[in-house]
Amino acid sequence: MKKLEQLYEGKAKKVFKTDDPELYIVDYKDDATAFNGEKKGTIMGKGVINNRVSNHLMKMLETHGIPTHFVEEISERETVVKKVTIVPLEVIVRNIAAGSLSKRLGLPEGTKMKSTVLEYSYKDDALGDPMVNDYHIAAMGLATKEELETIAGYALKVNEILSEYLKDLNIELIDFKLEFGKTSDGTIILADEISPDTCRFWDSTTGEKLDKDRFRRDMGGVEDAYKEVMKRLLGE
Amino acid sequence: MKKLEQLYEGKAKKVFKTDDPELYIVDYKDDATAFNGEKKGTIMGKGVINNRVSNHLMKMLETHGIPTHFVEEISERETVVKKVTIVPLEVIVRNIAAGSLSKRLGLPEGTKMKSTVLEYSYKDDALGDPMVNDYHIAAMGLATKEELETIAGYALKVNEILSEYLKDLNIELIDFKLEFGKTSDGTIILADEISPDTCRFWDSTTGEKLDKDRFRRDMGGVEDAYKEVMKRLLGE
Repeated sequence: MKKLEQLYEGKAKKVFKTDDPELYIVDYKDDATAFNGEKKGTIMGKGVINNRVSNHLMKMLETHGIPTHFVEEISERETVVKKVTIVPLEVIVRNIAAGSLSKRLGLPEGTKMKSTVLEYSYKDDALGDPMVNDYHIAAMGLATKEELETIAGYALKVNEILSEYLKDLNIELIDFKLEFGKTSDGTIILADEISPDTCRFWDSTTGEKLDKDRFRRDMGGVEDAYKEVMKRLLGE
Repeated sequence: MKKLEQLYEGKAKKVFKTDDPELYIVDYKDDATAFNGEKKGTIMGKGVINNRVSNHLMKMLETHGIPTHFVEEISERETVVKKVTIVPLEVIVRNIAAGSLSKRLGLPEGTKMKSTVLEYSYKDDALGDPMVNDYHIAAMGLATKEELETIAGYALKVNEILSEYLKDLNIELIDFKLEFGKTSDGTIILADEISPDTCRFWDSTTGEKLDKDRFRRDMGGVEDAYKEVMKRLLGE
């Protein structure tokens, strides 16, 4: 497979065309940003870890019936994925109050909520990715009712599978962000990544943060936390 | 009926106990606030107009099957209402993009959306009434699933009835905020008020604003706009 021209460079990844019109190559960077790009930095080795962790989790989810964009890992930082049109929503699933939810709703970080929370942000950097609900999504034509039902169903199923899987690795899944895409035939599949950049992982015993909050909050030990996640997931 | 001690003083109303434990008296003030209390002022005659307009609309909605807190208008500014425990949600229905939605989602004011939007804010001044969705409401125990279904159903029905009613008065219903309460037996009924303080009313022909946006945005003609609404609704 040939890596052709770059289509897109985001905060943490580059995407390239290939000689197959239905496939892209994703190249993971070490660059880290937070707070809608206001904070910038580098997490050494992050690209490799996120590529490998995300592929590992996508493969695991596929075995549980979640369709994903994953095709083949071709190098430490590069993966072949299915070409999709990204649905312009961040799909956030929350088991424990943390981060922006804690701040917005006045729930101290770590609060166990009565039930799982699913929320959507409209992916628009200029607007600061504002929260939207099912009605906004329909009114703005961001996804059809059927597409959104599929997305919500997958997101909640991913939460169940992933929470269970991580529990055995002594990791508590606090919350995470997913993105979905549509293939050329309109099928909704899981896209983007699942990594310490996009999830909150807490050590089940100590509560230690093993995710990007260490970077966001200048807690130190950022690289070690990412390595620890890879070690628990991939045994290396 | 005896007006007993004051229970509560809000931004635009006072609420009093009465000698009937199931009834309260609401007393409408001329005070106006905006932007979560940051802007303060007085709209002369507003209390009288909002009392009369709200009662008129509540009575009209009752004839269409919406249960409300309205019992009896006892003076220009005072109304007897059923005692309820307020569900801590602002229930907002939007037909046309305006105000905070325009700003948050980048939709120019006046944009006709593909479908009606229903959104909820958690009533908490200190948090700035943050937007919440069905999942947050369940996770925080703000209302049960059944209560929220009832509330959503009433809110959308009020929108249909009120839009139709106002159309005949050459008023376009852009958006509005409702609050619901629970009576002592747990029944959900429409409470609070429906007035130019809580709705966006635009003249259907000229697009002129006939609501509190004239106060929020220092447009002048505030009192005249409120009077015009009362005139169209009550013929005086």
